[in-house]
Amino acid sequence: MRDLEEVVERARIIVRPTRLEERRLKRVVEMAISAAKEGISGIVGAVDVSLEGSAAKNTWIRGRAEADIFIHFDPRVSREELERLIVEIGSNLIEELGGEPVIMYADHPYVEGVVDGVTVDIVACYRVEPPNWISATDRTPYHTRYVLGRLKPGQEDEVRLLKGFMRACGVYGAEIKVEGFSGYLAELLTIYYDSFINAIREISGWKPPITIDLEGYYESREKILEAFPESPLIVVDPVDRSRNVAAAVSFTRLSELILAAKLFLKKPSTRFFKPSDRAPSTGELRALLKDRSILYVYFRLEDRRPRDVLWGELKRSEQGIRRCLENMGFTVYRSISWTDERKECMLIFELDRTELPRYYLHKGPPVYLKNADEFVEKWREAIAGPWIEGERLYVLRRREEVSVHKLLAERIVSGQVSISRGLMGAIQRARININAKSLLKLASKSNDLKRFLLDFLAAKPPFLKK
Amino acid sequence: MRDLEEVVERARIIVRPTRLEERRLKRVVEMAISAAKEGISGIVGAVDVSLEGSAAKNTWIRGRAEADIFIHFDPRVSREELERLIVEIGSNLIEELGGEPVIMYADHPYVEGVVDGVTVDIVACYRVEPPNWISATDRTPYHTRYVLGRLKPGQEDEVRLLKGFMRACGVYGAEIKVEGFSGYLAELLTIYYDSFINAIREISGWKPPITIDLEGYYESREKILEAFPESPLIVVDPVDRSRNVAAAVSFTRLSELILAAKLFLKKPSTRFFKPSDRAPSTGELRALLKDRSILYVYFRLEDRRPRDVLWGELKRSEQGIRRCLENMGFTVYRSISWTDERKECMLIFELDRTELPRYYLHKGPPVYLKNADEFVEKWREAIAGPWIEGERLYVLRRREEVSVHKLLAERIVSGQVSISRGLMGAIQRARININAKSLLKLASKSNDLKRFLLDFLAAKPPFLKK
Repeated sequence: MRDLEEVVERARIIVRPTRLEERRLKRVVEMAISAAKEGISGIVGAVDVSLEGSAAKNTWIRGRAEADIFIHFDPRVSREELERLIVEIGSNLIEELGGEPVIMYADHPYVEGVVDGVTVDIVACYRVEPPNWISATDRTPYHTRYVLGRLKPGQEDEVRLLKGFMRACGVYGAEIKVEGFSGYLAELLTIYYDSFINAIREISGWKPPITIDLEGYYESREKILEAFPESPLIVVDPVDRSRNVAAAVSFTRLSELILAAKLFLKKPSTRFFKPSDRAPSTGELRALLKDRSILYVYFRLEDRRPRDVLWGELKRSEQGIRRCLENMGFTVYRSISWTDERKECMLIFELDRTELPRYYLHKGPPVYLKNADEFVEKWREAIAGPWIEGERLYVLRRREEVSVHKLLAERIVSGQVSISRGLMGAIQRARININAKSLLKLASKSNDLKRFLLDFLAAKPPFLKK
Repeated sequence: MRDLEEVVERARIIVRPTRLEERRLKRVVEMAISAAKEGISGIVGAVDVSLEGSAAKNTWIRGRAEADIFIHFDPRVSREELERLIVEIGSNLIEELGGEPVIMYADHPYVEGVVDGVTVDIVACYRVEPPNWISATDRTPYHTRYVLGRLKPGQEDEVRLLKGFMRACGVYGAEIKVEGFSGYLAELLTIYYDSFINAIREISGWKPPITIDLEGYYESREKILEAFPESPLIVVDPVDRSRNVAAAVSFTRLSELILAAKLFLKKPSTRFFKPSDRAPSTGELRALLKDRSILYVYFRLEDRRPRDVLWGELKRSEQGIRRCLENMGFTVYRSISWTDERKECMLIFELDRTELPRYYLHKGPPVYLKNADEFVEKWREAIAGPWIEGERLYVLRRREEVSVHKLLAERIVSGQVSISRGLMGAIQRARININAKSLLKLASKSNDLKRFLLDFLAAKPPFLKK
């Protein structure tokens, strides 16, 4: 118990921003807000500017300084017009602040830039009253307002502890790449459970499905489960009763958080707050690869696309290939996608083996059916059979090709694998292989790819790493 | 049609005994009967002597001359006494006829010897009235009487055609080794369907379950199916309404006969009456073995036992090993037993492969269960994992041994495989291997083993062989 509190005290220092970071963020925010206000003056339909996100709520954690500047638009502005305007306003703004604007896409485009070490996002939303949402970002100002109104003084650090814990455990981030917990979700959980320690205690006892309804919008747990079937974690949005704030959280990420909470309480340690990003040596990777059946699909993109779009395409293609491998008769133990989010991508699969049996059983009709003699005629020259077992005919058939990478390549090229349309061309030209040496050679060029391979081969969530 | 009749005419010559065989059998039978009558005179309880079986009914086929001499006992003679007496009487009789007596076992012991090229069996039965059967052979004299009473003049050759067809197709014989059609069953089918051609026509249209009730003992097909559930072929014994004459016929043998009948009608040929017993060359076997995953278990018996007992033990052990292989994760395409019926035995299995994957998935508990942390502690040092997928923990485990023959040998030695007690010792000392060379070396010593291997590897019923 002492132990736990001591560890949490030390963890505060890890998650709290430094004075320097705080001052820097404050300065960037002030510059950005005043520049934005000036930037929209004279633009019809752009009605206001606000700071949102963790900077507005003072809940950002060390190393994650972000300024989310929202430009509010009149609902009479069309979607198209809004998209055109935010790209224009945002690009000018980032340039004016001395950054290099990059156009990003979520529900609609926004503009990102790094200013004095701080990530600045210029985002559009409609000024509407709940529940008349037009775009996905319209709720954000209400989220900020709700959290500011409910967080007690000093509770910001409790939020930071929970976010820092989630980050180090690999479950922080609602983007498709992570499928984890958003900052807003961490804030709501802190509000609901009051303190970090209490939140971790409650989480360690979670047995999905979990339902949390801060504003008591629903009569009962049953009604919540009815409204959000199949979600393992449901946190009703205090700003929109029809929305699950945890909709992006995958069952796997949820389970990882539960286990991390259990293990943390059992043996508290600041390890649970320190993200590890050690790049392994080639020798270490080689040792991990020994005797494993690892299939990889490596390809390069020819054109860029929004990060979330790319991750979605990768994950869908990974699933498509996984199903194809299983249909061919392989067992897929695990699979994962990787990309540097610019050019390089890799899908990677761990299998039971890399070859199918040379011969396989082919089932024919029962002997009493009309087509039994046709079957016999067709397979008369088989190496083994046709023979009869029970009421049925069988024959042993030979496979010309048995190697998984060649079989998969054939199917991909002939269009038999369900792959995202946007990646089809790149994957049809992909390097598909099971050779450990060439995989290590690929990885030797990139620390990020090495880290990813280590994570995949060791297959331990961050909090279980040595 | 002409074609069919012509082929059947030519087949008659193949199945009919030669004059020489006929004369020889007749002479042996006369000698045996008169010697038997003399042999039982003065033995209290032995009341009569008769000729039974195909010789009595004139339905035996060329190359299968057999004299079944039955000694009838008074029902007051005990089982033990009867067994003692038949061994004594039979042995003396065979010796007197100039043969070498061998004691055989079916339901109870009998004595076999070869006299002038004819197999003579001296068998005991009780003289009882139906349905007061004491032993399994008591029905035989009634079977003989029934067939003699129902066969029309000249129909003996129809029986011979059917028996010869069944023999060449590998389905003739009710013993455990074959699990096929007895001579009596062939006779009943001929009586029921009148001629060979008609029988084959009917059989070619059979769709199991088949019910035949010559004496109309049952009201309906449904009643027959109720009385003999799970039998694919039911021929009610005209001599005993509670007995299925086809009880020994396996589904596989039945299906083989159906298919043979279909193919024969489609393309009549005397091939369907000529048993093939060509021994293959080692080169032919080597070519068939290429790339196949063949596991064999070869052993020598230390003591003799009745043929049917041995075959039963072999087949049960084959099934036990098959289940063990499947439990270990192999797919068994086919398996078969072989023995020279004296010393050598072999069980042989065709598998999808000869090795298990080096790594396998080990499923842990869901993270929300109490024992989740124990699982994590236990497997912390695993090469891969513990990881979480969905709600559950997993880990990748390494197998020290992956070769099927070594894995099987371990399990057999440690008594984990369901093997017939009578073969346990011999199989625990068996040669278990997957090596084609050593298998070919073993086979090179015995034409019978070579034939068996050819049959197993080519896996075609006799009527589909080239």
